[in-house]
Amino acid sequence: MKFLHTADWHIGKKLNGYSLLNEQADAFRQVLAIAEREQVDAIVVAGDLYDRSVPSVEAIELFNQMMIEMNLEKKYPLLAISGNHDSSTRLETGGPWYAQLNFHLHTRLEQAFQPVVLGNTQFFLLPYFEPFQARAYFEDDTIRTIEEAMVSVVKEMKTAFDPTKKQVLVAHFFVAGGEKSESETQITVGGLDAVPRSLLGDFAYVALGHLHYKNALTKGNARYSGALLNYSLEERAQEKGVWIVQVSDTKTTVDFQKIIPLRDVVLLEETFATLTDPEFYNQVNRENYIGIILKDRGVIPNVMQHLRQIYPFIIRLERQARKTNPQTKTIKAQRLQQQNPEELFTQYFKETTGEELSAVQAAYLKTSLTMIEKSEKE
Amino acid sequence: MKFLHTADWHIGKKLNGYSLLNEQADAFRQVLAIAEREQVDAIVVAGDLYDRSVPSVEAIELFNQMMIEMNLEKKYPLLAISGNHDSSTRLETGGPWYAQLNFHLHTRLEQAFQPVVLGNTQFFLLPYFEPFQARAYFEDDTIRTIEEAMVSVVKEMKTAFDPTKKQVLVAHFFVAGGEKSESETQITVGGLDAVPRSLLGDFAYVALGHLHYKNALTKGNARYSGALLNYSLEERAQEKGVWIVQVSDTKTTVDFQKIIPLRDVVLLEETFATLTDPEFYNQVNRENYIGIILKDRGVIPNVMQHLRQIYPFIIRLERQARKTNPQTKTIKAQRLQQQNPEELFTQYFKETTGEELSAVQAAYLKTSLTMIEKSEKE
Repeated sequence: MKFLHTADWHIGKKLNGYSLLNEQADAFRQVLAIAEREQVDAIVVAGDLYDRSVPSVEAIELFNQMMIEMNLEKKYPLLAISGNHDSSTRLETGGPWYAQLNFHLHTRLEQAFQPVVLGNTQFFLLPYFEPFQARAYFEDDTIRTIEEAMVSVVKEMKTAFDPTKKQVLVAHFFVAGGEKSESETQITVGGLDAVPRSLLGDFAYVALGHLHYKNALTKGNARYSGALLNYSLEERAQEKGVWIVQVSDTKTTVDFQKIIPLRDVVLLEETFATLTDPEFYNQVNRENYIGIILKDRGVIPNVMQHLRQIYPFIIRLERQARKTNPQTKTIKAQRLQQQNPEELFTQYFKETTGEELSAVQAAYLKTSLTMIEKSEKE
Repeated sequence: MKFLHTADWHIGKKLNGYSLLNEQADAFRQVLAIAEREQVDAIVVAGDLYDRSVPSVEAIELFNQMMIEMNLEKKYPLLAISGNHDSSTRLETGGPWYAQLNFHLHTRLEQAFQPVVLGNTQFFLLPYFEPFQARAYFEDDTIRTIEEAMVSVVKEMKTAFDPTKKQVLVAHFFVAGGEKSESETQITVGGLDAVPRSLLGDFAYVALGHLHYKNALTKGNARYSGALLNYSLEERAQEKGVWIVQVSDTKTTVDFQKIIPLRDVVLLEETFATLTDPEFYNQVNRENYIGIILKDRGVIPNVMQHLRQIYPFIIRLERQARKTNPQTKTIKAQRLQQQNPEELFTQYFKETTGEELSAVQAAYLKTSLTMIEKSEKE
């Protein structure tokens, strides 16, 4: 069994308002080209197919087209799960029909225990789930964390293990990456507790989604494929791609195949003078998505407007953090506490964008603050 | 060919905030029971499957369950189109897989010209469309109305007619109901222009959705099935149900089969004293959705609160229209013109509900008015 492992597509994601649909369509073409070149038997997508629970019509169109091409046209068996960014109910529409045509899309915990068998391999497709869903499924009120839930999940999966086959788990959660001693410490990342890798030792391979960085795990039987593209400035240095996984009776081998993004995400940390100097900017690929950290200290009027004329795809603009003395900080903090939230936000907006709130924005702010106040009282 | 014709399900619709999902699930059970009793060969749903372009998760769950039961479990061939309430893109997810398993869901104009053949019948499934889509499809800028579009649509469909079979059109639009002379007059209803019935003469049957009243058409080869339930007070007197249509080589016969709603929609036009008199209200089925027209003229404090204690499902409450003399009207109109929209709405809200706007509501109002003002200026 040779398959392609990808995850975290986040179809419909925007970077500071810029639609990534073109870049996603291009990356998808590369994934498909890798699948064809490597002659894989199946394609695995480990969650976060969409970026939002209610995707836009344009995102749905692209996603549908991708699935049609992979499954109905190129005839790849498709194995996919919902991630924390997906709405499991919205995604599961069509699922029972897909399943009859070699497209297995699992969105509910109870579907995880019926393996999909392809060749010599049983695939257990475990969608993203919350501890409360495991409590309900196992009728066990003592389950409080994903780690606790996974003890029961793996135990139930093992009752379906066929000893003549190999087992692959497809999942969307945080796996603690270290050695056994480390993984036994409870680690919580972004509100999600981690699953120790030792719990997953019975699988020939664990195809993970959730973390966007393929090097989040580098040892043992479990891998993150990483996201389809660099989805934030923080991911800018990360190589993106897919794993080609080969599971044989004796061993599992993995091979990483790169995706080259149509537009990259880069960070420039310079002064305004440098950034606006043709000698500098003509050396920069200005078609990339660009984050800028301004090294200047003084006021620069209409800074964003000036920079946008040179760099059309600015996704972040901020000032270099300054060192302040503790006294200034205290005075500022006192002044902040004396202001009401509306003044505070208005001022912050002006400092950040260089623009005044419009009448509509001001009205939205008022509504939001009223609602927050109200909900705090309730 | 014997099939069941239904339409306008509007899954997820609410009546004044009350979810109708239970009633819709119950009506669906009745539809399925009719299909089984009548041993139909197929089920046709002529548009407006959902009530909104972005249905709620609960609506999606019910809808998916219905489709699974009809098509995958009971094995009925399913022929459906999107209506004006559906988002064609959101609905079409899964379509290419459905089509391989006898569930034909057409959401785009170009799909209308490939008939689905079942037994002796070619089904042309024409989803709801706008004139601009017909202009693009036919590359004909002269098409301005649905009537003009339908001339081209029918012409193209006829090129696919198999003379050894009968033809059925499934569509979602307004058909002018009268005789030929009448139908040649252009009629516009709710912004949609009408299609003259004479244009549809070549079909053995036209299964329509859009109008919720089955008696909107009573003659010839075209029928509205009407909605699944009474979806407004205006529909309260309308019998709901489905058509059982039998198309043979020599003739088409239709037979209406009733659906009995779990809760009915009724209107009470009475004084407050009558409505709150046990002798009256114990004779009324208070589990129904109830619209009330109060015959009183005086002020009744907390009228809604009192009535809700007796009638739990009030969907509308209004006063009987009064006759006013022209002078009073002019004075009132002048006064209205002098008030700003915010005051006006606040006062209207109080008169209608007997309550003051809450802080949150007032803030929403402000935001909305600011946005309206802004958009009027643009």
